[in-house]
Amino acid sequence: MVTSFFGVNYREVEVGEVVTLARQQPLLLACGQTIADFPLAYQTYGTLNARRDNAILVCHALTGDQYVCGTHPVTGKPGWWDRMVGPGKPIDTDRFFVICSNILGGCMGSLGPKETNPKTGQPYGLGFPFITMGDMVNAQALLLDHLCIEKLFCVIGGSMGGMQALEWAVRYPQRLFSVVAIATATRQSAQNIAFHEIGRQAIMADPDWCDGDYIAQRKYPAKGLAVARMAAHVTYLSQDMLQEKFGRNLQDREEYTYGFGADFRVESYLRHQGMSFVERFDANSYLYLTRAASYFDLTEGGKHSLSNVFADTKIRYLVASFTSDWLYASAESRNLVRALNSVAANVSFAEIDSDKGHDSFLLESAEFDATIRGFMRGSASLAGIA
Amino acid sequence: MVTSFFGVNYREVEVGEVVTLARQQPLLLACGQTIADFPLAYQTYGTLNARRDNAILVCHALTGDQYVCGTHPVTGKPGWWDRMVGPGKPIDTDRFFVICSNILGGCMGSLGPKETNPKTGQPYGLGFPFITMGDMVNAQALLLDHLCIEKLFCVIGGSMGGMQALEWAVRYPQRLFSVVAIATATRQSAQNIAFHEIGRQAIMADPDWCDGDYIAQRKYPAKGLAVARMAAHVTYLSQDMLQEKFGRNLQDREEYTYGFGADFRVESYLRHQGMSFVERFDANSYLYLTRAASYFDLTEGGKHSLSNVFADTKIRYLVASFTSDWLYASAESRNLVRALNSVAANVSFAEIDSDKGHDSFLLESAEFDATIRGFMRGSASLAGIA
Repeated sequence: MVTSFFGVNYREVEVGEVVTLARQQPLLLACGQTIADFPLAYQTYGTLNARRDNAILVCHALTGDQYVCGTHPVTGKPGWWDRMVGPGKPIDTDRFFVICSNILGGCMGSLGPKETNPKTGQPYGLGFPFITMGDMVNAQALLLDHLCIEKLFCVIGGSMGGMQALEWAVRYPQRLFSVVAIATATRQSAQNIAFHEIGRQAIMADPDWCDGDYIAQRKYPAKGLAVARMAAHVTYLSQDMLQEKFGRNLQDREEYTYGFGADFRVESYLRHQGMSFVERFDANSYLYLTRAASYFDLTEGGKHSLSNVFADTKIRYLVASFTSDWLYASAESRNLVRALNSVAANVSFAEIDSDKGHDSFLLESAEFDATIRGFMRGSASLAGIA
Repeated sequence: MVTSFFGVNYREVEVGEVVTLARQQPLLLACGQTIADFPLAYQTYGTLNARRDNAILVCHALTGDQYVCGTHPVTGKPGWWDRMVGPGKPIDTDRFFVICSNILGGCMGSLGPKETNPKTGQPYGLGFPFITMGDMVNAQALLLDHLCIEKLFCVIGGSMGGMQALEWAVRYPQRLFSVVAIATATRQSAQNIAFHEIGRQAIMADPDWCDGDYIAQRKYPAKGLAVARMAAHVTYLSQDMLQEKFGRNLQDREEYTYGFGADFRVESYLRHQGMSFVERFDANSYLYLTRAASYFDLTEGGKHSLSNVFADTKIRYLVASFTSDWLYASAESRNLVRALNSVAANVSFAEIDSDKGHDSFLLESAEFDATIRGFMRGSASLAGIA
């Protein structure tokens, strides 16, 4: 089904597998509200072995979804980590059983603000409860219960997916053999918070946002959401990469037009990023998920030291960062590694040389691939996975 | 007079001195259009000496204006460079005659899109001609003609003011003794262009922008302009400075509210920046001035090498950058210095240690002040200014 909002085709999502969780007992959220009988959409790749010990949970980033590899049913493009996950790939689905669920608050089939609130029969909109990274992880743990997987071989994620991986390490250490945290941090920095606030303000400034009630009012804040995406997208790329890829090149013209059209290729590119995002993402989800990110802080506002958070951890860690990532800079990863080292954790740190900025974790990189492949092989061998 | 648009007090500007330029002969703009009989608003500080050789033209940045020092008549706050310009200050008005004009396309009394188009009797809006950094400088040159100043002792500016200073060096080398270019570049980078495009899209996404016709329609794109300012403001600050000043501190609350209010101090700060900007700046001016910035490239798209641009220059240059400025990074300044060195120009380069990002040029810094003071004293001595 194709629903048209505001001249944009907002394609009805094909959500794949969906499980209804918290049937017996509601899930208590950090905000104090509870959710029950809620859907979580997920995909699996590869085969769960007889010992049920070869499962890897892949956590997606802010605007990712459960379609890690293969062809995405909505966009028709390869899944967001097709390069990394699959038969013979660094996360080898010939060996591992890979699970990825659309995060709580998302818009690809899991419970989120565009789903129907059973109490009102209307989409939740701003009636959706606020969620945190911990809530997302708790929902994923319920999914594992449903799949009868007691312990994960690994939980892995980049960016906001890395935050989930770290939350896993803190909340369910006994359910993990290893954790891979990529291009992430133990808390959102002031600059991270600032950029997300800009995005939210752009959405909420759009009158078609309708105070979050746009679905019922048959509107869509496409312009605001596109601006939010543009503002975020530029933070995913390094200055050098932008300069090398676009420079001051003009878009299909030889001279300045002396106008407000997309004279420059980088302008055209950003506009395209904004417009195509609007087709695949829900504006309220964007608000809730960026809010969850800004609330993320493993020390809970300094109530605990970072070392204490990881005290006595038995998990094997791999922390990876990229030299040109300024959104989640290497310094953030080093900070995490220092905390892990100070509690004598088993941690390996790889700072990958890259000029592609934060998005490096999604892009081709032989060094990064080899790092992940090596960690998976070595850890699997240690865990006795065939 | 106070005009209220959209619940915001958009104060009628007090423009101070205004001269009408291009009375005899129209000024040809880069876009091919001409302007004639146009107003340029300016302020002067100090006294022009008998030889008329002690004049310093200060060029303001994107959203600055002619009120360099003293109390700003609109905001009631000190002028934007009050710290730097005044009696006994690094740019000493006891010794120098300081001129600053509101740039062409601005909104503080000079010809800009909110002024009345004599052909229609309505505000220009999008009927305003597109302007470039070169056009701004040509208008400033006409102002100097009006003031009967043939040669400037110095032209100085930071950020977009620095671009004007460099345009001066290229267009009117015979009218300059020295140039100071601070926290700037010889062209807008792809990342600079991208951030400005985001700001423009935020403004144009606001339905109260009315395709630029908001004044006639008695509307104002306050929300869009505020988002644009927020997106720009975060680029003016360094990551470290944001972390040190705001960190994850909450705003007047002890716990997360689990809401979309400004839970974090950095969010509250950014919102304030957005809202206060709307009171003092015209949205269409913002569009035109950021466009002028994106068109800035001394090599004209690579038609000339940067060295050739400065060939045979006799001007004394000071180039200054700040270590934590990522918007106009030191590498950009070094690039300029290399080009000047390759034509044996008289150039001094100061990379100032600062953690305050691009805005450093506006902020307290003993090292920076001493650098400017020293350059002014030494150059004045060489120029024989008492």
